[in-house]
Amino acid sequence: MIILDKLVVAVVGATGAVGREMIRVLEQRKFPVKMLVPLATARKENRTVRFRGRALTVRATTDKSFNGVDLTLFAGGSNASQEFGWEAVRRGSLVIDNSSTFRARPDVPLVVPEVNADALRFNHGLVANPNCSTIQMCVVIKPIYKKLGIKRIVVSTYQSVSGKGRDAMEELTKQAKAFLSGKKYAPKVFPHQIAFNVLPHIDVFLENGYTKEEMKMVTETRKIFSNPRLPITATTVRVPVLIGHSESINIETEKPVSIEVVRKLLSQQYGVIVVDDEAPVKDDPLRRTYPLPVDATGRDEVFVGRIRKDISVENGIDLWCVADNLRKGAATNAVQIAELLF
Amino acid sequence: MIILDKLVVAVVGATGAVGREMIRVLEQRKFPVKMLVPLATARKENRTVRFRGRALTVRATTDKSFNGVDLTLFAGGSNASQEFGWEAVRRGSLVIDNSSTFRARPDVPLVVPEVNADALRFNHGLVANPNCSTIQMCVVIKPIYKKLGIKRIVVSTYQSVSGKGRDAMEELTKQAKAFLSGKKYAPKVFPHQIAFNVLPHIDVFLENGYTKEEMKMVTETRKIFSNPRLPITATTVRVPVLIGHSESINIETEKPVSIEVVRKLLSQQYGVIVVDDEAPVKDDPLRRTYPLPVDATGRDEVFVGRIRKDISVENGIDLWCVADNLRKGAATNAVQIAELLF
Repeated sequence: MIILDKLVVAVVGATGAVGREMIRVLEQRKFPVKMLVPLATARKENRTVRFRGRALTVRATTDKSFNGVDLTLFAGGSNASQEFGWEAVRRGSLVIDNSSTFRARPDVPLVVPEVNADALRFNHGLVANPNCSTIQMCVVIKPIYKKLGIKRIVVSTYQSVSGKGRDAMEELTKQAKAFLSGKKYAPKVFPHQIAFNVLPHIDVFLENGYTKEEMKMVTETRKIFSNPRLPITATTVRVPVLIGHSESINIETEKPVSIEVVRKLLSQQYGVIVVDDEAPVKDDPLRRTYPLPVDATGRDEVFVGRIRKDISVENGIDLWCVADNLRKGAATNAVQIAELLF
Repeated sequence: MIILDKLVVAVVGATGAVGREMIRVLEQRKFPVKMLVPLATARKENRTVRFRGRALTVRATTDKSFNGVDLTLFAGGSNASQEFGWEAVRRGSLVIDNSSTFRARPDVPLVVPEVNADALRFNHGLVANPNCSTIQMCVVIKPIYKKLGIKRIVVSTYQSVSGKGRDAMEELTKQAKAFLSGKKYAPKVFPHQIAFNVLPHIDVFLENGYTKEEMKMVTETRKIFSNPRLPITATTVRVPVLIGHSESINIETEKPVSIEVVRKLLSQQYGVIVVDDEAPVKDDPLRRTYPLPVDATGRDEVFVGRIRKDISVENGIDLWCVADNLRKGAATNAVQIAELLF
């Protein structure tokens, strides 16, 4: 990078789970920030966020907030993106939006840097960050898609509560505490008890019986791979984990597949770390490594394990992938897009 | 039933999670028990279990324990079944074994009453109870298999800790408590932290990269449906839930499939309760019913929801099924087999 410490960067939704992580990632990846502008709804005004050791005061977002801003990362909900997304662009800022608002628009690139960085070439100042569960799957399937072709994907997810924000994390811990002392804690953020339970329900339900979260995994992956007919089915499930999404992915490939080849493709893929043994440990069939959400927390890579040949089809593999949904699933991916743009 | 209150029934492993549930189910289903003989390892001798309001003293299992016993339910580990299974038969008892020891043997029927009760006709006095995750899947796929044919199954599980016994339940609650007060609680029962985490690892690892639990879902289902080539792939995952296994099941059918037909087949299936809406609730896309492990606890049925047409293949469906793994997944299924035998 040639330009250093030159950019004014705004983060909308700076007090949320993803917003805070974006600020942390900007600092950790030494993104060339001249000035950081933390923005949020009026309700959050005057809170502070920390950046490079200093406490910065959060301001309420208005149209004028974007004057003189070079780059805006939207980490608020769809409302913020809808209200201010294009306004920020009009006022001269490049925008990377983490909400689902513009992801389907043909004039908005939807980018996972490891997969389709080239999609950034044509943009109107606004780039969409894909959904957390989509990003980690795309990074993992990319080398398989390129080398072997993909016929069909069946994915089931195990998604942490932080995907729903800080309130959801608080609900899980408070509800678990109450449960363990024999008390009740009525759900507010989730539709049902999440502590010591699993919910096959993320985002709203659609006419076809899928949830919006499930259809995001379908339509966003198709857009990222520029393959509008890529066959995918998804079941997305919330589990009582604080940070880190896991996915059980079944892939049917076009070409014959061997585990050795898949293992090699994945270990050579930028952004992927293979956590797997090549064979059961001799005399100790219980010992084998695999990725876990608690280990992925705070990391920028996607972790893959349990790689095995699917015994139910001629050409297929099963695998298990885990990533920090706030980082690679949101903040890190957004900052990586920004790094490519500047 | 003609014979009432006539049988001497022994339960081996009477102090464990499944053994206790078996005794509860025998009582609740009014199984004709003349005398209950609770057995366990010598280490558990003199503990008591409750049956019909009375405390019964647990005895150490020996060969002689089975003299005069009409029916023995084995709920201990493989060791107990291996040591005493056939001995109990030799001494005149019918045996229903919950361990995996004899499930693969061609001379031992492996039975889910809703699916293959007829397999009981030929037995040598010993019947095997399938694995918990297998039972609930078999009950659900049965009417689909019979009516539409099944081409392939891809299943991912969300299994509760009680599948690993009472120690595992204690580990989850104690570890969660410790975690919530910022303390550490080293895993003893599980290979890694289970509180606020998920583990893609149940039972030992096999040469082909699958776990034994995953291969049980494959081989046992094939045996139950008398279809040694039924294509199935499974990923089995432990989640921090106390009781109740959930499964995300993807089914490719031989014949064309409509959701209306599948819904009807499932709602007519004995042992299945459909928990699903036929369409999103108008003006409230967040409201929709689906089965949850906390709701299935203590129930004998298998609950099914999230039934939808798989958009990735011509003939396919996705669904979500939940059952109490200690009851339909173990104790209830065993007692149902006994009801058929007597």
